[in-house]
Amino acid sequence: MFNFTTSIWSTLEQAIAEDIGSGDVTTNALIAPDLKTKAAIIAKSDGVIAGLEVALSVFELVDPSLESVVLVQDGSMVAPGELVGQVSGSTSSILRAERVALNFLQRLSGIATMTSLYVQAVAGTKARIIDTRKTIPGLRELEKYAIRVGGGFNHRFNLSDGILIKDNHILALRESGFTISNIIKLARDRSPHTLKVEIEVESIDEAKEALEGGADVILLDNMTSSVMKDVVDLVNGRCILEASGGVNLNTVADIAKTGVNLISVGALTHSVKAMDISLDIYNRL
Amino acid sequence: MFNFTTSIWSTLEQAIAEDIGSGDVTTNALIAPDLKTKAAIIAKSDGVIAGLEVALSVFELVDPSLESVVLVQDGSMVAPGELVGQVSGSTSSILRAERVALNFLQRLSGIATMTSLYVQAVAGTKARIIDTRKTIPGLRELEKYAIRVGGGFNHRFNLSDGILIKDNHILALRESGFTISNIIKLARDRSPHTLKVEIEVESIDEAKEALEGGADVILLDNMTSSVMKDVVDLVNGRCILEASGGVNLNTVADIAKTGVNLISVGALTHSVKAMDISLDIYNRL
Amino acid sequence: MFNFTTSIWSTLEQAIAEDIGSGDVTTNALIAPDLKTKAAIIAKSDGVIAGLEVALSVFELVDPSLESVVLVQDGSMVAPGELVGQVSGSTSSILRAERVALNFLQRLSGIATMTSLYVQAVAGTKARIIDTRKTIPGLRELEKYAIRVGGGFNHRFNLSDGILIKDNHILALRESGFTISNIIKLARDRSPHTLKVEIEVESIDEAKEALEGGADVILLDNMTSSVMKDVVDLVNGRCILEASGGVNLNTVADIAKTGVNLISVGALTHSVKAMDISLDIYNRL
Amino acid sequence: MFNFTTSIWSTLEQAIAEDIGSGDVTTNALIAPDLKTKAAIIAKSDGVIAGLEVALSVFELVDPSLESVVLVQDGSMVAPGELVGQVSGSTSSILRAERVALNFLQRLSGIATMTSLYVQAVAGTKARIIDTRKTIPGLRELEKYAIRVGGGFNHRFNLSDGILIKDNHILALRESGFTISNIIKLARDRSPHTLKVEIEVESIDEAKEALEGGADVILLDNMTSSVMKDVVDLVNGRCILEASGGVNLNTVADIAKTGVNLISVGALTHSVKAMDISLDIYNRL
Amino acid sequence: MFNFTTSIWSTLEQAIAEDIGSGDVTTNALIAPDLKTKAAIIAKSDGVIAGLEVALSVFELVDPSLESVVLVQDGSMVAPGELVGQVSGSTSSILRAERVALNFLQRLSGIATMTSLYVQAVAGTKARIIDTRKTIPGLRELEKYAIRVGGGFNHRFNLSDGILIKDNHILALRESGFTISNIIKLARDRSPHTLKVEIEVESIDEAKEALEGGADVILLDNMTSSVMKDVVDLVNGRCILEASGGVNLNTVADIAKTGVNLISVGALTHSVKAMDISLDIYNRL
Amino acid sequence: MFNFTTSIWSTLEQAIAEDIGSGDVTTNALIAPDLKTKAAIIAKSDGVIAGLEVALSVFELVDPSLESVVLVQDGSMVAPGELVGQVSGSTSSILRAERVALNFLQRLSGIATMTSLYVQAVAGTKARIIDTRKTIPGLRELEKYAIRVGGGFNHRFNLSDGILIKDNHILALRESGFTISNIIKLARDRSPHTLKVEIEVESIDEAKEALEGGADVILLDNMTSSVMKDVVDLVNGRCILEASGGVNLNTVADIAKTGVNLISVGALTHSVKAMDISLDIYNRL
Repeated sequence: MFNFTTSIWSTLEQAIAEDIGSGDVTTNALIAPDLKTKAAIIAKSDGVIAGLEVALSVFELVDPSLESVVLVQDGSMVAPGELVGQVSGSTSSILRAERVALNFLQRLSGIATMTSLYVQAVAGTKARIIDTRKTIPGLRELEKYAIRVGGGFNHRFNLSDGILIKDNHILALRESGFTISNIIKLARDRSPHTLKVEIEVESIDEAKEALEGGADVILLDNMTSSVMKDVVDLVNGRCILEASGGVNLNTVADIAKTGVNLISVGALTHSVKAMDISLDIYNRL
Repeated sequence: MFNFTTSIWSTLEQAIAEDIGSGDVTTNALIAPDLKTKAAIIAKSDGVIAGLEVALSVFELVDPSLESVVLVQDGSMVAPGELVGQVSGSTSSILRAERVALNFLQRLSGIATMTSLYVQAVAGTKARIIDTRKTIPGLRELEKYAIRVGGGFNHRFNLSDGILIKDNHILALRESGFTISNIIKLARDRSPHTLKVEIEVESIDEAKEALEGGADVILLDNMTSSVMKDVVDLVNGRCILEASGGVNLNTVADIAKTGVNLISVGALTHSVKAMDISLDIYNRL
Repeated sequence: MFNFTTSIWSTLEQAIAEDIGSGDVTTNALIAPDLKTKAAIIAKSDGVIAGLEVALSVFELVDPSLESVVLVQDGSMVAPGELVGQVSGSTSSILRAERVALNFLQRLSGIATMTSLYVQAVAGTKARIIDTRKTIPGLRELEKYAIRVGGGFNHRFNLSDGILIKDNHILALRESGFTISNIIKLARDRSPHTLKVEIEVESIDEAKEALEGGADVILLDNMTSSVMKDVVDLVNGRCILEASGGVNLNTVADIAKTGVNLISVGALTHSVKAMDISLDIYNRL
Repeated sequence: MFNFTTSIWSTLEQAIAEDIGSGDVTTNALIAPDLKTKAAIIAKSDGVIAGLEVALSVFELVDPSLESVVLVQDGSMVAPGELVGQVSGSTSSILRAERVALNFLQRLSGIATMTSLYVQAVAGTKARIIDTRKTIPGLRELEKYAIRVGGGFNHRFNLSDGILIKDNHILALRESGFTISNIIKLARDRSPHTLKVEIEVESIDEAKEALEGGADVILLDNMTSSVMKDVVDLVNGRCILEASGGVNLNTVADIAKTGVNLISVGALTHSVKAMDISLDIYNRL
Repeated sequence: MFNFTTSIWSTLEQAIAEDIGSGDVTTNALIAPDLKTKAAIIAKSDGVIAGLEVALSVFELVDPSLESVVLVQDGSMVAPGELVGQVSGSTSSILRAERVALNFLQRLSGIATMTSLYVQAVAGTKARIIDTRKTIPGLRELEKYAIRVGGGFNHRFNLSDGILIKDNHILALRESGFTISNIIKLARDRSPHTLKVEIEVESIDEAKEALEGGADVILLDNMTSSVMKDVVDLVNGRCILEASGGVNLNTVADIAKTGVNLISVGALTHSVKAMDISLDIYNRL
Repeated sequence: MFNFTTSIWSTLEQAIAEDIGSGDVTTNALIAPDLKTKAAIIAKSDGVIAGLEVALSVFELVDPSLESVVLVQDGSMVAPGELVGQVSGSTSSILRAERVALNFLQRLSGIATMTSLYVQAVAGTKARIIDTRKTIPGLRELEKYAIRVGGGFNHRFNLSDGILIKDNHILALRESGFTISNIIKLARDRSPHTLKVEIEVESIDEAKEALEGGADVILLDNMTSSVMKDVVDLVNGRCILEASGGVNLNTVADIAKTGVNLISVGALTHSVKAMDISLDIYNRL
C-alpha cells in the first residue's frame, strides 16, 4: 500500500495543473458532462508495475467521483496485453486525467523494470542494487519508491540523511593537509550520532586508509572488478563496501561476485526507458 | 538566453529543497564556511548542451554570492572533456548545489542530444521533429525548451493550447452516432477561434473523411510508410499531416520521406539517456 | 456543472483567508457554536446567474458540515426576489462565509448579465460576442466561465494559447523592415502547428496585406462600421474577422451587421456592474 | 510610496503566471531577444492614477533588467494623452508584461477615479467616503489602497479588525430573546479591547436603543435622508454614524448634509469602470 | 469546538512534513502496514488541556483512516494519569504522527495551564489577563486560542487590528514637536473608525495627557502598583487601563488590586513550560 | 555565518505576514514614510545570542532598503545593556519589523542560553548535550541551530535521518514474538546503509540484549544514574550510549559522570524561557 504524503499530493496536483492549463479544450468541446465510461489501463510490454495507486489517484484528484480499481499490485511482473487497472465514471474526467496518470505510471514502472533486471543479474550474491541522488528533480520520493518496488534498496534520500565524503570533499580538504583518517574523524565528531560515515576512495591504498580511519562504509569508485576483489579481501567484513561507476547490465554480475555489499546504479533513474502502458475506453456504462 | 519564469524558479527551489533536506551534513561537518574554490562543469560524452543557464542558476539560488560563467551556449555540440561552464565562490555552497545542478543539466542535455539525432536523420526533408505531452511531471516547460534547443519543435504545451481529437474521443462519440465530420465541426464551433482542429486517424479512409470534414491537421497514427505516402498524395497540401507511433532512429528517415509535415516522438522525453557531465573542483582561490 | 480545478480551489481559499483574517470577531463573540439556521440567497435585480456552485462551495470550504442547494442553474435569467440557492447548518459558519460567497456570485452574475445583453443585441447575425484578456488579475478562469454562461465565447485564455500579433509587435518589427506578410510567415514558422495566426490591422490596405499573407484571423481595430463592411466584402469568407474597439451596447448591433465573425468586448470584464444579490437568514432550524 | 508586502508580490506573480501560461507564443516567435525599446504608459481618459508603482513592478517581475519611471504620483488627476510612466529595456519582456500591468493600473485607477467623484460630491461636509468588504476576491489590499488614493477612507479590512453587528446577527440573536443592548454588551465583553462596537440599525428607535446600549458606531441602513437627519440630531455627537445603502452620485451630497460621519459605498469596488490607459512602444533604443 | 481555518491546516501540514522528512525509516522498516492498535493520550502532570482537537487532527492528516476520540474538552483541568484522548487504526500511522501531535498539545496545554494560574491569581478583581504579540512565529492563531482556553483574553492579533502607540512611536514623533494629544488625534483621524486608540505612557503626567487627548485605552508601562493606583484614581473609569511590564505570578495580584482593567503578560507565550503528556500504545486491535 | 535556505526564508515571510496582517495601522497613521532613524538591539539580561542574522533579515524582508549590522556573533555571551545589533533606515519599516525580529531573536537566544548552561554543567565529562524532536512546529531548523550555537549537538532532525526504535515500536512488535535482537536485525536489513540503529531500553537486561543484537546506539530511558553506570560498564565502549528522561540542571552532571556519550534534553526546546532583548530607537538620522 503506497504511503501518500503531503508532498506527493502536491506533486500530483502540480502535474495535473501543468497538463490541464486553463482547461481541456478538446474534451470540453466534444464530450457531454454526463457521459460515463469504463477505461482499462493495459500493459503494452513486459515489465514490473510501479506507481499504480499513484496513477489512479490522479483520476480521483481530477474528479473525486471517478472510481478506480487496482488489478495488479505494485511489484508484479506483467506481460503485454495484461489489464493492470480500471477507472470508471465521467468520460470527460477520465480523458482529462489520462496523460498525467500514464506519465507517472510509465516512468515509475520503467524504473522498477530496469531495477528488477539488475537485481536478477546479481541473484545468488550478497550484493544489493541501490540507487543514487541522480533522480529527476521533484520526483525523488516516487523514484526511490519505484526502486524498492523493483527489488532494489535506497541509498540516502538527500544530503541530510547520510554522510558521504566524496572526491570533491577530499580534494578540498587535502590541500589543507587533511588525511583520510582526519577527515573521517572530523565527519564523525561533527555530525549527528545517528549517521554512519561513508567515504569514496579510488585505490586499494585509500581503501586501507579509510578502513583504518574507521569508516563505516567505503565507496569504491570506478575500480576494476579485480581491484575491488582485493579490497573485499582486505576489508574482510570489517566495514560495508559499495561499488559505483561503470555499472551496467553486462558488468554488474562480475562486480557482485567480488563480494561487495552494495552496487549503486545511477542509470536506474537518470537514463530509464518508460514502460509502454496505455489507457483504452472499452465500454460505455 | 533562457527566459526564467516564476514557475521555473519554483521548480528549481523545490529541487534544491528536495536534495538538501534539513542540511548537507557532510559538507557542514567538513568544509569551513570561508573556504573558496573554482569548479568546472565538464562534458564526459558527446552531446548537445541544454539548460546550462538553468543549472548555473541552481548555484546562485543556493548561495547568491556564487559566480558562474556560461562557456558554451545552449545548443552547442560538445565533445568529451570540453569545459562548458564554471562556478566560483564558497566551496561548501558549490558542493551543496552540485547534484541538483547536474541533474537538470544532464537530463536537458540528454533530451537535446537525442532530439538532434532525429533532426539530423530527417535533414533534407520538410518534416519537423516534434515532441509530445509524454514529459516528466513537473518538468514540461524545461523539457520542451530542450527539444527546441536540439532543433525540434513543440507540439501543444498542454490540454488548453491545442485541439487534438484522439482515438478515445472518437470512440466515445461514435457510439452516439457522430461521424468524423460532425466531430470536427463540433470541435470548431465550441472552441476558441485561435486554435486549429487536429484529429487522429488510423486509415486512409478516415484521413479522407477528416480532410473533407475540414480538419486543419491530421495525425496519422501507427501507419506504415507506404500508407502514409498515400495519405500525403491524397491530401496534397490541403492540410498539415503529423506522423506518430513506431518512430525511432531506424524508421524516422523513411517516415520523413513520405512527405509528412510533422513527426512526433514520445521517446524524446519519456525514454531519454542523461548526458554524462560532471563537476570538478580544480583550483582553490 | 462547474468544473472545479486546483487553481479554483486555491482562489476560493485565498479569498476566504483574505476576508476572515485572524477570525470573525463579531460572530465569535455573539453566535453560539451550536446555533443552526437556514439562509436564502436571493436575487435583488434582474440578471443572469453565474457562479452559484462556486459561491456555494465557499460555504463548504468555511465549514464542511454546511449543506447547500442549487435552486437555479447557472445561465438562468432571474427576477428580483427570486430564490437562487439555500444554505443550512451552523449560523456562525454561514455568517463567516456570506460576504466572500456573495462577492464571487455578484461579480460573475454581473459579467453573465452584461454578456447576455450584448448577445441579445447581435441576435440574428452571425457575430459571436467574445471576451478579452482585460480580466481581473487572479479571476480569469472564473470570469471566462461567466462569459460563456452569458452566451458569449472566449478569446484566448492567455499568451500561450493563441497567436495575436498586435500593433506593438508590428511596430517593433516594421523598423527592421518586416512586412505584414513576413511577420505572418515568421509567426507560423516558429509556433506550434496547433495555433492559428491572428493579426491586428488598422486599415483596409493592411487587412488586404494580412489576407494575402495568409492570416487565419484578422482583428479589425477601431474601424468604422462602413470600413469594416468593406473588409468583410474583400475577405469574402477567406479568413475569420474580429472587430474590436469602440464597442458598446449602442454600437454592437451595427458592427454585427457588417458580417464580422467575432466582436470582442473588454468592458465585459473590466467595467462590469455587480448583480445585486443578498443572503437572508430566514428560519432557525 | 506604495508599501509592498509579501502578499502583494504573490498577487502580482500569480497574475503574471495566469497571463503568460506556458509562454507568450507570439512574442517568442517574432521578437528577437536582444531587441530593446521604450514604452510609454499613457492616460486615454480623465481620471485619478492609482497603482502605478504596482503596475511598473509587474514589468520588473517579468524581467528584472527592465527599468521603469514613475512620471505621475498616485493620486494625481490626469487628462487624456498624459504620459504617466515609462518602461525601457527588452521589447519582448515589455510585451509579455503589458496586459497584466495595465489590468492592475486600469482597475485601481478606475476605483480611485470613482472615489474622488464621491469625495468631491461631499466636499464641505464632515462626511467621509468609506469602502466596504465588497471587493474583488484576492485584490482587497490593492483596492483599499486605491480608495485611499482617491481620497476615501477604509472601513474594516476583514472580519477580524472591526466588530460590525449586522442585521443577520441581530436576527439570529433576537429569537433567543436578546435586546440590542444585550447584544452590544456581549460583543464588547467578548472581544479584544482594541476594537469599537458598531451595530446596524434600521429605524430611529433601534438607533436610540443602540446609543443607549453604548454602541461606539451606528450603521444607518437604507434610511431616507430625513430619518438620518433625525438620528443625527438624536445622537448629537455621542457616537459615530455611518450611512449605507442607496448611495450613488446623485444622492450622496444630500446624505452627507444630514451630518453623518461616514458614508460607505459598495459600488466603489463592486461596480467600477476601468480607467482607459494604454501602453505604446514609441522609440527603439 | 475548535474552528479550523485554512491557515491552521497549513500549519499542521507543514509541521507534519517537517517531522516526517522523506519518510519514517524506523516505522517503515519495522511495522507491517496492516498492523492495527489503539493508543491513549495521557496527562503526566496537572494542567489545563488545550488543542486536543488540533492534536488529533494531526493523526487524521497523516492517515485519514485513523479514528480519534476527544475524551476531555479543551479547558478542562486534568491530573497526572488522566486519559484525555484516544486514537485507533494503523499502528505505523499512529507512530508517524505521535511526536507532532504531542508537540502541539503539550505547548498549547502549557500555555493554557500558565494562563489559568494568572487568572486564578486575579480572581475577585475586575482585571483581565491578556496576551501580547510575543508569540512563537507561525503559531499565533493557536497560541491565542490557548490563552482563551486558559481563561485569558486576547490583545490585538496583529498590527492591523488595533492601534497601539508605543514608546518608539512617541519618541520618533516627539522630535518633530508632536504632543501626546496631537499624536492621539493623528492616529484617530487616519485610521479606520472601527479601531480604538491605545497609547503607552510611563508616568502619571503622561497618563493625564493621554486621557485629556482622548485616548480610548492607556497602557501603563512598568509602573509600580502605587503609581498605577494613582492613575486608576485619576482616570476614574473614563478610559480603559492596561498594565504591562514586570508582571509575574508574585506581582500580578497586587497589580490587579490597583483597579486596572487589563494586565498583559508576555511570558504566557514567550516563556512557557510544555505540559507533560504522552501517547501509549495499550492494546492491539 | 547562518546558512539561509528556502524554507527559512519562507518561515520568516510567514511570520511577517502573520504579524502585519493587512497593514500596521498605527505606524501607517503616524510615521511619515520619509522619516529615518537608527535602532539598537540591546540585551536586557545575561545570555547567549543566537539568531541575530535571522532577526536582522526580518528587517530586510520587510524593507530591502533597511541596513543592519551584526555587532555580536551568534554564540557570544552578553550582559544586560550590551548592544548586539543595529538597524538603520525608514522609521516606519523598522517599527513594522520590530516584534517579529525580536520574537525570533529572543526565542533562539533563550534556547542557546539554556543549552549553554547544560553544556557547562557537564564540562569535563565526555557527555554531549543533545536535543530532541520536541521542538516548536515549524521552527525545527532554527531551534536545532540555536542548540548548536549554545554548544549542544543535534539528535536526528526528523524521522528520516535516524533509526530510533522506541518503546512503542518494541511494544507493537513484542506481541508478534519479536525479540530485541530480531528487531535490530530487521531495522538494519530494511533501512538505508547510511543510518545507524538506535534502540530505547529500560533495564540493564534489555541493554545487554540490545548490545548483543548489534545496536549501534542504545538509549537509556529514565534510568537512575546508578543503573546507567552499570550499563556503561557493561557496554565498555562497544556502542554509543544516550541518556534520556528526568534530565535537569540539578541532575545532568551526575548523569554525565556515569560515562554516557550523549544526554538528550527535551526542555531545551519545549520549555525554554525567552531571553530579554529589546529594540530602541536612539537617534534620528
